[in-house]
Amino acid sequence: MNAEIIAVGTEMLLGEIVNTNAQYVAKLLARYGVPSYYQTVVGDNSQRLTETIQLAETRSDIIFLMGGLGPTLDDLTKQTLAKHLGLYLKTDAKAVAKLKAWQQQTQKKMPANNLAQAYYIDHGEVLSNQVGLAVGSFLSWENHHYFILPGPPRELIPMVDQAVEPRLAQLVGVQQVFASKMLRFFGIGESFIADQLQDLIAQQQNPTIATYIKDYEIGVRVTARASSKLAAAAILAPVVQEIKKRLADYYVGEGENRRLSDEVVDQLKAKQLTVTAAESLTAGLFQATLASVAGASDVFPGGFVTYANQVKSELLGIAPEVIEQNGVVSLEIAQQMAQFAALKLKTNFGLGFTGVAGPDELEGQPVGTVFIALANQQQTIAVQEYHFSGKRNEIRNRAVEAGLKMLYDHLNNN
Amino acid sequence: MNAEIIAVGTEMLLGEIVNTNAQYVAKLLARYGVPSYYQTVVGDNSQRLTETIQLAETRSDIIFLMGGLGPTLDDLTKQTLAKHLGLYLKTDAKAVAKLKAWQQQTQKKMPANNLAQAYYIDHGEVLSNQVGLAVGSFLSWENHHYFILPGPPRELIPMVDQAVEPRLAQLVGVQQVFASKMLRFFGIGESFIADQLQDLIAQQQNPTIATYIKDYEIGVRVTARASSKLAAAAILAPVVQEIKKRLADYYVGEGENRRLSDEVVDQLKAKQLTVTAAESLTAGLFQATLASVAGASDVFPGGFVTYANQVKSELLGIAPEVIEQNGVVSLEIAQQMAQFAALKLKTNFGLGFTGVAGPDELEGQPVGTVFIALANQQQTIAVQEYHFSGKRNEIRNRAVEAGLKMLYDHLNNN
Repeated sequence: MNAEIIAVGTEMLLGEIVNTNAQYVAKLLARYGVPSYYQTVVGDNSQRLTETIQLAETRSDIIFLMGGLGPTLDDLTKQTLAKHLGLYLKTDAKAVAKLKAWQQQTQKKMPANNLAQAYYIDHGEVLSNQVGLAVGSFLSWENHHYFILPGPPRELIPMVDQAVEPRLAQLVGVQQVFASKMLRFFGIGESFIADQLQDLIAQQQNPTIATYIKDYEIGVRVTARASSKLAAAAILAPVVQEIKKRLADYYVGEGENRRLSDEVVDQLKAKQLTVTAAESLTAGLFQATLASVAGASDVFPGGFVTYANQVKSELLGIAPEVIEQNGVVSLEIAQQMAQFAALKLKTNFGLGFTGVAGPDELEGQPVGTVFIALANQQQTIAVQEYHFSGKRNEIRNRAVEAGLKMLYDHLNNN
Repeated sequence: MNAEIIAVGTEMLLGEIVNTNAQYVAKLLARYGVPSYYQTVVGDNSQRLTETIQLAETRSDIIFLMGGLGPTLDDLTKQTLAKHLGLYLKTDAKAVAKLKAWQQQTQKKMPANNLAQAYYIDHGEVLSNQVGLAVGSFLSWENHHYFILPGPPRELIPMVDQAVEPRLAQLVGVQQVFASKMLRFFGIGESFIADQLQDLIAQQQNPTIATYIKDYEIGVRVTARASSKLAAAAILAPVVQEIKKRLADYYVGEGENRRLSDEVVDQLKAKQLTVTAAESLTAGLFQATLASVAGASDVFPGGFVTYANQVKSELLGIAPEVIEQNGVVSLEIAQQMAQFAALKLKTNFGLGFTGVAGPDELEGQPVGTVFIALANQQQTIAVQEYHFSGKRNEIRNRAVEAGLKMLYDHLNNN
């Protein structure tokens, strides 16, 4: 059984609003594994809407019609579908009572056409509107199933959640509960992840696996369905474990709204360790990212923004000759920045960031070349050369994430 | 002449992303008075895409295809249209060179399929991509006109602005030229601006006035149309001047993609002045924002992140007794942070940021209390107490913008 989504409204054709309803319904369909191959937007025009419904009937079993249920003359979705199917419109008594109560409360004159909001198609079922005045409806007729829903998202969303989802579940024979995990990875592309999980993704039915690009991380959402929460969790667990095993080097935690900085701050806190940084190309962005996490003050006392070479010498004590010998964009300077910062602020860890954010190259090093070091007060723990793509601020952001990953890896391997 | 919009991408059918591209193109069509009766979303499937194109050809003159220009195997928009029309694909030499340069910069292996991004359809015209690697194209063939555009909005939007709009204007024979300015304001709400400009907005026909929320600024776009650039500019000028006059206290510059940090860095550069900062609650975000502007190194040598009180004393030399007497979240400490930072790094200006980002209050001061000071090496220039609304990171971002505004105002009044 497959489904198709039709949004009705000239305001979308004029670009006045975005069709977010299609996304909301599409997500529901994806969750229930209902294939959906087309979404259409058509204006408030009876003839073109009829043609669109006819086409949908040739290729889809379930048809969502969204919008055009209101009281104005160009709201004609129910009227058009009823005419097309040769069915009458009926009036929902409860909706009429609600309209009259609304009229009394607001003391507005009710235009005659207002009653159209209480229409539903004969043989159909009324879906009541918790938020607005126009009722939705559900109709099964001649091998097709129609959901007729209001256009405003604040009316559509609760109707989808409360009235559409259970009927859809029944239609597709799913009596199910969902369990879902978002795994997050850093340092690899979406296509690499897709390669590594190819067999799992190819055979996916339950659980399903989907990848998402989230700023500088890649998210992998695994969703299982079963008849109980416990059973769904049991289906989820081995696949989650397998994915984490295959992509272990890149794994940076779990959870939809968490970021790598949350993981790092939480682990430092748990281990009672502290960190500082000396930043050149990132110019404070690493420290600002750490401090974006509530409670960062427990693990981060402050640090250095050493943009100019002279400031690297004055604030950190890096000898000008060392900068001259190695170049400021170098493994050596990244290491000294990291270690000297940790020494100055007496922290457990220091990070050093030096590189070329662009737009121009520096010391003959191309844009995107970045050196990051992690040190304690005695020595370098890790140091790496990167070549990031993108423009100035993408490069700076990638460098911050790479620094967080370096510290995250050290905390997790020790 | 009418137009139809087809978005290609399974990710929209799965509800993973919203089809904002359709809105962007629909707005363009509305602006040029081009009727558009249908928008379709179809997945990355050659057969269904072909059927969708065929249907569109029966009812529309201009067809927009958006998405599916990338390097993966399921990107097949150009290939599908070419096959449908019986035309060959050609390779754009400039795009190939760009792909190779990208490969060199990132030192990544280029998969063979990557070159597909340089394809365009024979007899068509290449629309170069300012942001990404996949070229767009424009093709007029057998009574239809096709715009083939990339899916990511950050690539599509500049291509529509720069390459699609002029070709569309020519197609529909509009001899009108648009002139537009984006004025930016900080420190007031959108509704306040709407109030102040109510009469101008009410009588708007030409130019039109629209407000936009852009991060922590409010943008006001004024757009005039006329038969020539010169005539459009002449219609624009007096309205722009009037708006700037009415909202002078909040004005922070002009230009769609510029930010307050751009204005500040450019003005410091022009005046050959330098700035540093000592940041507590913002923890490097002010300095990172300055350095997000290319060429910031001319005006910004580096600075201090002084999160812990002890670090404020150690790095800046603020006496612990002064912190104890005044509290760390105070006018006095903001001023000392600003002046001592300027003294340490011998810059013309120093900014000091101290405050309560939350989630918990500090020293009895409520969340959102922030003190910002601007100083030179001799004395305080300006200092202000703020009470920002929002959560932790909104408060930190507002503090950064307020600091930039403080410096901007000083630079513009002196």
